[in-house]
Amino acid sequence: MTFVCPNIGVNAEGRLTFAGQDTLRLAEEYGTPLYLMDEDRIRHNCRLYLDAFKASFRPGSLPHYAAKAAAFKAICRVVAEEGMGIDVCSTGEIATAVAAGVDMTRVMFPSNGKSDGDIRYALDRGVGCFVIDNTEELLALEAEAEKRGITKKALLRLTPGIDPHTYAAVNTGMVDSKFGVAIETGQAEQFVRLALQQKHIELLGYHCHVGSQVFGEDVFERAAVVMLEFIADMAKKTGYLAGVLDLGGGYGVPYVASDPAIDIPAKIASVAAAVKETCVRLGIAEPCIMMEPGRSIVADAGMTLYRVLAVKRITGYKSYVTIDGGMTDDPRYALYGSRYTVLAAGRMGETADFRCTLAGRCCESGDLIQENILLPDGVGRGDVIAVCTTGAYNYSMASNYNRFGRPPVVMLRDGESYVAVRRETPEDLLRLDA
Amino acid sequence: MTFVCPNIGVNAEGRLTFAGQDTLRLAEEYGTPLYLMDEDRIRHNCRLYLDAFKASFRPGSLPHYAAKAAAFKAICRVVAEEGMGIDVCSTGEIATAVAAGVDMTRVMFPSNGKSDGDIRYALDRGVGCFVIDNTEELLALEAEAEKRGITKKALLRLTPGIDPHTYAAVNTGMVDSKFGVAIETGQAEQFVRLALQQKHIELLGYHCHVGSQVFGEDVFERAAVVMLEFIADMAKKTGYLAGVLDLGGGYGVPYVASDPAIDIPAKIASVAAAVKETCVRLGIAEPCIMMEPGRSIVADAGMTLYRVLAVKRITGYKSYVTIDGGMTDDPRYALYGSRYTVLAAGRMGETADFRCTLAGRCCESGDLIQENILLPDGVGRGDVIAVCTTGAYNYSMASNYNRFGRPPVVMLRDGESYVAVRRETPEDLLRLDA
Repeated sequence: MTFVCPNIGVNAEGRLTFAGQDTLRLAEEYGTPLYLMDEDRIRHNCRLYLDAFKASFRPGSLPHYAAKAAAFKAICRVVAEEGMGIDVCSTGEIATAVAAGVDMTRVMFPSNGKSDGDIRYALDRGVGCFVIDNTEELLALEAEAEKRGITKKALLRLTPGIDPHTYAAVNTGMVDSKFGVAIETGQAEQFVRLALQQKHIELLGYHCHVGSQVFGEDVFERAAVVMLEFIADMAKKTGYLAGVLDLGGGYGVPYVASDPAIDIPAKIASVAAAVKETCVRLGIAEPCIMMEPGRSIVADAGMTLYRVLAVKRITGYKSYVTIDGGMTDDPRYALYGSRYTVLAAGRMGETADFRCTLAGRCCESGDLIQENILLPDGVGRGDVIAVCTTGAYNYSMASNYNRFGRPPVVMLRDGESYVAVRRETPEDLLRLDA
Repeated sequence: MTFVCPNIGVNAEGRLTFAGQDTLRLAEEYGTPLYLMDEDRIRHNCRLYLDAFKASFRPGSLPHYAAKAAAFKAICRVVAEEGMGIDVCSTGEIATAVAAGVDMTRVMFPSNGKSDGDIRYALDRGVGCFVIDNTEELLALEAEAEKRGITKKALLRLTPGIDPHTYAAVNTGMVDSKFGVAIETGQAEQFVRLALQQKHIELLGYHCHVGSQVFGEDVFERAAVVMLEFIADMAKKTGYLAGVLDLGGGYGVPYVASDPAIDIPAKIASVAAAVKETCVRLGIAEPCIMMEPGRSIVADAGMTLYRVLAVKRITGYKSYVTIDGGMTDDPRYALYGSRYTVLAAGRMGETADFRCTLAGRCCESGDLIQENILLPDGVGRGDVIAVCTTGAYNYSMASNYNRFGRPPVVMLRDGESYVAVRRETPEDLLRLDA
């Protein structure tokens, strides 16, 4: 059998393995629902970007892990050990990076909404570089930096007007966006001129983000060309030549067998070729390139294990397999209709011909994990169900809806396992109540 | 000005008030984002149901507050003080009711997925009545009750096959549902027969749920008729006459001025008339009636206050007002496209003619609170924005996405305010990380 990621397999007993470990044993040891994370796969994915960056872009270029995909201490530690920078978007993510012992000079702080308190928090903890989203933030950061008598490194977030042909809710580089300032409307030029007037902001360059889960042939290349042309235009008009271009985002990840697999190093080499060619054409020095992969670092490093609570075969209608988790630990199907590969971990040798919907245990009809899947006919209460490729935007988007505690995250490495995030108990859920 | 709920007003200084209190003062005192809950309104809404139940249904009938709408200790305490029963759907909600000092014999435990551990937890804490969703749960509860040498009260959850004409994701009474067992297919009859064979389960009656946010003229009446006919049919076939009929759910709530307002006592009187008439027609004794309002108890008792971080006017495109919250504290627009009334709390005397989208601060394009709203043109960084009718499914569905801490819940009563749930800090967010 071939699976959606090579870290998934079947052992001699016909049981599903993840990172070489028996998933039924892991479910037994740690309980369900359970998030598994394959640390070796995270490191492998980091190296794909790091090696390609080293081979393709000028020194000083760096991929930053987008912590929003999965933010807890162990992840920050692992990606930092590999040499990635880290992107944070809140005081909570900053606190996590600090607690993980990350070198904060390698941390960038994008986000489209920073309060004065957020700015102070980030400055107090030595965040290396701000990605300034809007004029209000620019002026607030300048005021705070002036008060402290410091100069702060920053990029400006711009929207290049690229439609990445991905799902609308994950498009962020188009002109009509809550993020950044548009080049097309002339507002980006005013934004740059205003930034250059600030005495306590050291403008390193520009940032854009053309969307999450990018598969399109040349989305990053097209974004790079638009941004480089803007760099050249600004250099001509103002004398300011940006030294850094952050292309945002990262590449898409296959969730089901029919999704395309992306050759990340080859893609990055194409972007590098486009960057070099455009810089030559425009007669400008090649900037350092940044990217912000999140999903492609952690998604296929994750798997969620559940146990079946009930199987409902509604005569003449659909069938439902109800599990001990749901939209609380994985809201992506409820939010986006996201697809997943679903496997019955203890029945890998059986034919999967029972068509059903995988339903969560929340008191909400929309609480489904996946519709129209095939599982073995014998599946029943107590069986372990694996949902693959859940490393990104699952733990990080989890909620306590219905006051369900969030599952633990168990990291797998070299045949060993360790708890990276412990299970949330009913007592934990009460800790904020007066 | 008239607002979507009478607890919203404007004071002499032209500032928005909620439960008679100045929202700018509350934002200043407690910070933003901030959930406000009007305790008096919660009590008022409880009494609408309690008084109508007393007037309309036979003794023993009781509305149960559906804790999933907003579950924290203060809410459980308030609704229990008013005399409501409480519906819980997880160990976390059970723990909350226990911590609030609720009489657990008045607590029901529906949910479509209960593990053996959930069943033990509920039995340990004396939950009064289980709502059994499926055969697996029935047998697991029987086994555990037998082990303890006890008999446990229970209802069986059935699906009457009613389409409440509400949004698909909140329809739960149709035949094709992850909840309950269908009457139409004959499976409900088998379910009842199996339940009657169990020696440690005292079957009180049946439960159904025809959906959340119900406005339809006669959804509850139609459900009641279908369920009563089933009760009569089962009595004839098995000799078992159900003494309790739980109609689930509650009535809809207006979110914007154009939504219909519902006269809850009148509606309940109509349901009671339908129940009485049907029982006479069928020649059966009138059962005790239960309902499970959640939204209509707390939704209009809630308001969320934010501060504006940025205003983005994209020339020739849309405008965005970015606030210091988002889908993390209110995911309902991202999930369902839910509508809300949005007000600029400090500019209530100004004309609202600036068309914009209210955007959250999460690094995600879909993180919007409401599109196409009108705010005063002068709105800018620091302004307080109020989103009305956020008492239900806001705090309870909140997440830590982007590692944002959840806002506090401040209860308002008799001109006073108190913290019911404290603000979640970056340190809180790290407590589960190893």
